[in-house]
Amino acid sequence: MTYEGEYLYDPRLLNNLDWDSVRGWLNPHITCTEPGESWLLVRPLQLSDYSKGFLEILTQLTAVGNVSYADFERQYRNMHKSGGYYVTVIEDTRTNTIIGAASLISEFKFIHGCGLRARLEDVVVNNTYRGKQLGKLIVVTVTLLARRLGCYKMTLDCKDHLIPFYKAIGYKLEPGNANSMTIRFDETPKIATPS
Amino acid sequence: MTYEGEYLYDPRLLNNLDWDSVRGWLNPHITCTEPGESWLLVRPLQLSDYSKGFLEILTQLTAVGNVSYADFERQYRNMHKSGGYYVTVIEDTRTNTIIGAASLISEFKFIHGCGLRARLEDVVVNNTYRGKQLGKLIVVTVTLLARRLGCYKMTLDCKDHLIPFYKAIGYKLEPGNANSMTIRFDETPKIATPS
Repeated sequence: MTYEGEYLYDPRLLNNLDWDSVRGWLNPHITCTEPGESWLLVRPLQLSDYSKGFLEILTQLTAVGNVSYADFERQYRNMHKSGGYYVTVIEDTRTNTIIGAASLISEFKFIHGCGLRARLEDVVVNNTYRGKQLGKLIVVTVTLLARRLGCYKMTLDCKDHLIPFYKAIGYKLEPGNANSMTIRFDETPKIATPS
Repeated sequence: MTYEGEYLYDPRLLNNLDWDSVRGWLNPHITCTEPGESWLLVRPLQLSDYSKGFLEILTQLTAVGNVSYADFERQYRNMHKSGGYYVTVIEDTRTNTIIGAASLISEFKFIHGCGLRARLEDVVVNNTYRGKQLGKLIVVTVTLLARRLGCYKMTLDCKDHLIPFYKAIGYKLEPGNANSMTIRFDETPKIATPS
């Protein structure tokens, strides 16, 4: 069986992650293969998630805009071809709905012995599933995946109110080195050219 | 002419960037094609930069380790194949030495209308060339390149003492949303398995 065309990345990468190393972070202890409810499924993104509410859940994070199926498929294939995109979702299989997502993006480096660095991006969980630790579950899943891939570190940008959440699962604000700065091009005022 | 095999990315992308939009950031006004000295050359990374001191200059940033030419070439080709890696260097053509570098890495997103996001990574300039604005020059070059590529934003992680430098060229600490958190896997104590 090949996973290509079925999943954005090989779903077997989610088997046998080192959940013992994070014992205590989730209470009760759940994992991506034993997520606490029989109707919860943690897996790589699929093309069919377009119609399962994947983009709708991302709107809880930021603007998504009008994305047609063709747009979605093109970007999915861009990610698949490029490699290094581990977009991971939680599905409620009772309703075939995506209720959570997080992305691990890996980056080739020359530093650290031509190492691999990881980033955590676009974490979101449907609010109506609160109390099931699904936010922690999806973030720890992709964090353990990054370690399995051999990344030397994983970083994330976050808002002030989310710092305690990430601290509880091992992320740190490194003293003197915890700043994320941004330049936005879409906010650049466009000056109309006189015709 | 094809750039493949010659450069990590198409060097023509550095022509005609919108330097007018950043007038005042560099004083005197220099650009990547008019860098102020006839012996300065701003261009994409090449494989031959292995023997021009590219890795040596990165050691001013962080640990690089022992990287053979084969390691370097493998990672260069990984980046070229993946796409989205715009590693840019400044060469002193009098000595055929790399004296500065900065990387733009682009990332496919589903948010922002299946947009493209940019990151600034691994910025370094040889200290002995101080006073020539080469730090600003290389960072503004890849920032303008990100805008040309259609990215909606560019971000960077930086140490406290570098905040004023980046503020002077348009980067901001967004209120309530300027935190970079890190988990390091290479610091995880390795427990020897009894044999």
